Amino acid sequence: MAEKITPRSVDYSQWYIDIILNAKLADYSPVKGSMVIRPRGYSIWERLRDELDRRFKATGHQNAYFPMFIPMSFLKKEAEHVEGFSPELAVVTHAGGEELEEPLVVRPTSETIIWHMYKSWIQSYRDLPLLYNQWANVVRWEKRTRLFLRTAEFLWQEGHTAHETKEDAIEETLRMLNVYKDFVEEYLCLPVIAGKKSESEKFAGAVDTYSIEAMMQDFKALQAGTSHFLGQNFAKAFDVQFQTRSGTLDYVWATSWGVSTRLIGAIIMTHSDDKGLVLPPTLAQEELVVIPIFKTDSKTDVLRYAQDVTSMLRDRGRRVVLDDDDTASPGWKFAEWEMRGVPIRIEAGPKDMAQGTVVMVRRDTGEKVTVKKDEIVQRADELLKAIQKNLFERAKQFRDKHTKDIADYESMKQYFSTDSAGVSDSNSGFARGLWCGSKECEAKLKADTKATIRCLPLDDQDDINGVCALCGAPAKHRAIFARAY
Amino acid sequence: MAEKITPRSVDYSQWYIDIILNAKLADYSPVKGSMVIRPRGYSIWERLRDELDRRFKATGHQNAYFPMFIPMSFLKKEAEHVEGFSPELAVVTHAGGEELEEPLVVRPTSETIIWHMYKSWIQSYRDLPLLYNQWANVVRWEKRTRLFLRTAEFLWQEGHTAHETKEDAIEETLRMLNVYKDFVEEYLCLPVIAGKKSESEKFAGAVDTYSIEAMMQDFKALQAGTSHFLGQNFAKAFDVQFQTRSGTLDYVWATSWGVSTRLIGAIIMTHSDDKGLVLPPTLAQEELVVIPIFKTDSKTDVLRYAQDVTSMLRDRGRRVVLDDDDTASPGWKFAEWEMRGVPIRIEAGPKDMAQGTVVMVRRDTGEKVTVKKDEIVQRADELLKAIQKNLFERAKQFRDKHTKDIADYESMKQYFSTDSAGVSDSNSGFARGLWCGSKECEAKLKADTKATIRCLPLDDQDDINGVCALCGAPAKHRAIFARAY
Repeated sequence: MAEKITPRSVDYSQWYIDIILNAKLADYSPVKGSMVIRPRGYSIWERLRDELDRRFKATGHQNAYFPMFIPMSFLKKEAEHVEGFSPELAVVTHAGGEELEEPLVVRPTSETIIWHMYKSWIQSYRDLPLLYNQWANVVRWEKRTRLFLRTAEFLWQEGHTAHETKEDAIEETLRMLNVYKDFVEEYLCLPVIAGKKSESEKFAGAVDTYSIEAMMQDFKALQAGTSHFLGQNFAKAFDVQFQTRSGTLDYVWATSWGVSTRLIGAIIMTHSDDKGLVLPPTLAQEELVVIPIFKTDSKTDVLRYAQDVTSMLRDRGRRVVLDDDDTASPGWKFAEWEMRGVPIRIEAGPKDMAQGTVVMVRRDTGEKVTVKKDEIVQRADELLKAIQKNLFERAKQFRDKHTKDIADYESMKQYFSTDSAGVSDSNSGFARGLWCGSKECEAKLKADTKATIRCLPLDDQDDINGVCALCGAPAKHRAIFARAY
Repeated sequence: MAEKITPRSVDYSQWYIDIILNAKLADYSPVKGSMVIRPRGYSIWERLRDELDRRFKATGHQNAYFPMFIPMSFLKKEAEHVEGFSPELAVVTHAGGEELEEPLVVRPTSETIIWHMYKSWIQSYRDLPLLYNQWANVVRWEKRTRLFLRTAEFLWQEGHTAHETKEDAIEETLRMLNVYKDFVEEYLCLPVIAGKKSESEKFAGAVDTYSIEAMMQDFKALQAGTSHFLGQNFAKAFDVQFQTRSGTLDYVWATSWGVSTRLIGAIIMTHSDDKGLVLPPTLAQEELVVIPIFKTDSKTDVLRYAQDVTSMLRDRGRRVVLDDDDTASPGWKFAEWEMRGVPIRIEAGPKDMAQGTVVMVRRDTGEKVTVKKDEIVQRADELLKAIQKNLFERAKQFRDKHTKDIADYESMKQYFSTDSAGVSDSNSGFARGLWCGSKECEAKLKADTKATIRCLPLDDQDDINGVCALCGAPAKHRAIFARAY
């Protein structure tokens, strides 16, 4: 119920957890750092996954499934990779009542086992490209966890592709970055900045990492998806060579890319309010809820009217639910369904029935409109589209409002110096500024302010004539700086 | 290629493996007992999963996701359950660089973690029924493994439901058994016998286990799905009580039910032949393949004709592929696509083009029909339906032919005494006979012949007047006896 939700202005982190628990999206598991995804949360994942899967297939990718257990020795074959993932591994040492000869790692990501298999599947340029994806669970044992955003086990997809040339692999890396950007913007209403990661933020084993970065309502950045150009690193580590068109042997070029259940955290944090969850219509388990409002004498007629309205919408393929529970008041139901994030509430009482109308209430703006019964299907369609559009536009305006151009280090430090548990306009957001490209600058900023370089936006690298906002040396890139989840 | 496949009559087990490897359905993984599901195999799983998921939702079930790691202590709470699963557990002892205080088990099945969660979600009869399902990977460390049929890690779904009354739970157990039976018969073309398991074959922790049993082409039985009535066993182990309608407290009644990637093994073993894979059209990645047949002078025209035919089918929503690779001969392609199990091959050569026809060849029967171009879409539709029907009917006739009524132990022993690596009509099949219900009889049969009671068929328990085929005591049930996977 809505009154259980801590306001964002008081404690943003608690607000987030309150929404998840009250809307029954997820629950804590008895195993530290793990979570249970409840049906209302899993239905968001299903809708998200199915649409993304459709887009993967439309771009020529196929799904496969690789084992979750990976021999420890495989991870060690790529030096940076094992260094990056070692601290987070869960290790199976015993199985079938015996100690294993070699411990097995539960996959933190699957490059190693996949490239081991690619060795036997790739002989010639005729076998390329291999455009594979898998939907799976992975484990990264993190010390600090938070429902959806960072959990020991999470669900994700990981694409792993193999190519003839460097150019093909880079093209694929950027293609999938764009698939992600279009998908999260169109389907999840999350405006994102697509860009390249700095050296210190890239994936362990990648040549280049690209990401899409979103802003949450506490102005922090959240990395919503990554796409990696792996060069020939894994092909060399697993000795995957192929016969080229000219008859020579060469190592295969690779990419990998992934998004996870973390996206659900991003959706919650971007759109919701103090009343509870707000969901894009595309993701909502129910697009509309019909709530009949009656007294004892009008009950039968109003219920029949509400059922009519519900059937009209259902017959047209809308996901609609009738809340005819007579042990709860309409006011309680309004709050409950607002908390659950249903995009449109339809109120139908004796007066509405007499006039042949209903009242439709938007979850995103609270706007109420009176609609004639024979226009309900049409108006529902229009309103759902309007909500989808508004959620994106609203989030984009919010992000732009909290993005500031900053040119020098004193301003940068001051910008990132204001923070509190609750959200207020004095909190820092994104800083847009020039950067010289040095690791030292980046490390200093992080030490001083906890802010990092989120990415070097791909579409914002023109006119780099100026000095680094961190050290004053000649600039090479334009970057987005922010604190991040 | 077809010549790589060992005939069933020579070595049935090798035939099965040859099909899987050559049709690229799966591959061996470097971790003993695990497998890699390749795209052509995974696409079968996707189609199967989506259809079954639709049927679960149509019967009121919702999906959720529970953590894969379960504290070892949870398993010990249900005595039979831990005894049944202990020998097969994979155990995580270290994570995040440290030894864990309590080892974590990788789920072999999820009753324990789910009932732990149900305790906090169920307070009253108003919270019931809970009808949850999850699609997940599970691990059972088996000594002897076989691709798809028995692997250390496999994919499955597990339904876990909670009910107010014993009757409700039993009704659910049988409802889901029937969902499975209808699904595998209609969609996978696998005729099955639905029945109750004997005490010694039931699930560890169940009151009653029901299964659907299929016959493979070597006449062995394969358990294709199970549905368990768990009574109050898990509710008691995890202390899940609810307030009843009369205001008292009672333990919740439970069911669980599952099918796995093993079904893909059953499909392969039931329908395929010595040329390779045979698939029900519902499951085939491509329903049709179009193969143009040309010499150099006719190439352009024939290719255009074949493209036309392909487009016609694709525009009508058919899954169709054009094999226009000009480095392989038509004959090689015929064998290759037969091996891959594509239900219909369309041959289009210069003569066909001149006559405005194509030749359609059924994978299941080899039957060829000449079809006018403007009737292709219609005939494809009819033929695909006919193939789906024929595969089921053929498998059912096969099973019935190899099911024998047996009334005494000597005949039973003789029936199960003939076996070889290759398949011949002298091999044993199903025996249908009466049983007294004693564990000792069952154990003796197994020791003497390796055959077990597969199930007590639900629709075949009338007229039990006679004596047990194993011991001669008065009979209580009619059973199906067979060797099994």
